[in-house]
Amino acid sequence: MMAAGTGFGRETRIFITHMHGDHILGIPGLLMTMSLLGRERRLEIYGPGGVGEYLATMPVSVRRGLTFPIGYAEAGPGRVYRGKDYTVLAERAKHGEDALAYAFVEDARRGRFDAHRAEELGIPEGPLRSALVRGETVTLSSGRAVHPGEVVGPERPGVKIVYSGDTQYSKSLVEFSRGADILVHDGTFDESLVKDAEAAMHSTCVDAARVASEAGVKKLYLFHVSARYRDTSILKAQASKVFQNTEVAEDLQAIDIT
Amino acid sequence: MMAAGTGFGRETRIFITHMHGDHILGIPGLLMTMSLLGRERRLEIYGPGGVGEYLATMPVSVRRGLTFPIGYAEAGPGRVYRGKDYTVLAERAKHGEDALAYAFVEDARRGRFDAHRAEELGIPEGPLRSALVRGETVTLSSGRAVHPGEVVGPERPGVKIVYSGDTQYSKSLVEFSRGADILVHDGTFDESLVKDAEAAMHSTCVDAARVASEAGVKKLYLFHVSARYRDTSILKAQASKVFQNTEVAEDLQAIDIT
Repeated sequence: MMAAGTGFGRETRIFITHMHGDHILGIPGLLMTMSLLGRERRLEIYGPGGVGEYLATMPVSVRRGLTFPIGYAEAGPGRVYRGKDYTVLAERAKHGEDALAYAFVEDARRGRFDAHRAEELGIPEGPLRSALVRGETVTLSSGRAVHPGEVVGPERPGVKIVYSGDTQYSKSLVEFSRGADILVHDGTFDESLVKDAEAAMHSTCVDAARVASEAGVKKLYLFHVSARYRDTSILKAQASKVFQNTEVAEDLQAIDIT
Repeated sequence: MMAAGTGFGRETRIFITHMHGDHILGIPGLLMTMSLLGRERRLEIYGPGGVGEYLATMPVSVRRGLTFPIGYAEAGPGRVYRGKDYTVLAERAKHGEDALAYAFVEDARRGRFDAHRAEELGIPEGPLRSALVRGETVTLSSGRAVHPGEVVGPERPGVKIVYSGDTQYSKSLVEFSRGADILVHDGTFDESLVKDAEAAMHSTCVDAARVASEAGVKKLYLFHVSARYRDTSILKAQASKVFQNTEVAEDLQAIDIT
C-alpha cells in the first residue's frame, strides 16, 4: 500500500477469501501500521467463517492500540457489500471448507454524450445538455424537441472484476465470472503439475484459462503463482493456447480498465 | 533470514522481548515459511508471559500446517537457555508490564597457544602440544617438564552480547550489560524528544549511551530508531558525546566480534 501510494486513511474494506495463514497473517500488522499513521476512519473486514474469531485473538497490545474502529461480517455466497455505485458479490471457491471468490460489479453507467451531434443540433452548452444526460427531453429556443437518445448513447455496463482467490477449476466460478472485464484467477502451477494442483486444491494456468474462456471474460490475469517459477512465461504460453488474452499478474502492477 | 542467508532448517531459538505486535506478529508467517521450505527440526520459542497463549491462538490452518514441532517456555529474569558453550540470560526491561532484555554469554575460551615459544622449547607438533592446550603438564624427550602456563596464555572471556529490547533507561540493564562486547540498545528518539521517549517507554540515544558508558561495554549499537529519522546521524552524534563507540544499527548489518 505504501509502494502503491493508496494511502492508509481512505475508505477501506478488506475482503478475505479464506482463513489460510498466507492470506490473513498480514492483517494485524496492517491495522497496527494504520494506527501508527493515525487512521481514524472505521474499517470493515469481510470474510468466511472464522474471521471474527481471528480478529478477536489478535494480541491485546494490537487490539488496544488501534486508533480506529473495526467491524467485520462473516460472508457467504451472494451480495456482501453495496457501495455507492458498485456491489461486491461472493461465490464459493473450491479450496477446502470455506473459501470465497469475490466480484466487484460496478453499476451500469450512463451513455456517452455525443458533443459533435449536439453541436449540429444547435444545443447550447449548459443546463439543456445536462438535462439530456439525465434522460430528459428538452426543447430548444427554435421550438425543436430533442430526445436524449438523439445525443446520448446507450447505457454502458459497469466494470466487472472477479478475483477467484485460491481455487481449483470450478463450474460455479465460470458462472460467477460471466462477462467479466478482468478475471484474476489462481494459476499456481503449469500443466505438467496437474496432480500437484489437485492435491493442493489449486489451479493450473490451463484450468484458469478454461474458466476465462468458458465465462467469456475480456482478460485473464494469473496470480498466486508458485515460487518455483522464476520465469513465468511457461504459464502464459500454456494458458494462451486456451485463452488468448492472458497475462501473469505482477506485484504492484497497475492496469487501466475502461 | 533469506537475505542474510541464515537458512531455515538450522538449530533455531526465538527469544521474544515482549508481546507488542511489532515484535511478535511476524512469527506465524515465519513458521509457515519454514514449513513451506520443509523444516523438520524442532524450534523453541522463549518469551515473557503470554507467549504460549499467542502461539495457541495462531490460525488453525497455520498450526496444522507446521512440518516441525514447536516448543515454548515463558521466561523471566535469570538463565533462559544453556547451549553447548553459551548461556542466554534475561533481565527485566522497562517497557510496560512484562518486557525482557536478553544476553548471549559465551563460555570462557581457552588461552591462546604460543607456537613461537613452543618452538623455542623444542616441543614437537602433535600430541604433546594438544596435551598442553588441554591443561596437562608434559615431559619432553630431553626430560624437561613443560607446564601449560609456559606456552598457553590465560583463559579469555567469551563474547557477551546484550540486546535491550524496547526499554527506557534502566539501572538493572546497566548491571546486566556490564562488560559486554556489544550492547544493542533501544535508541528510538533523539535527545530533543525526551518527553516522547518517556511517554512511549522508549530510550533516547543519550539514554542508551549512558547505559553503555556506565556498564563499560565495548561498543553500542542503537536500534529501534523512529521512522522519523531518515538521516540517523543526529542520533550517533548526540550519543557519541556520552559514549564514543556508538553506531546506529542497520538492517542486515553483519559485524565481526572476536
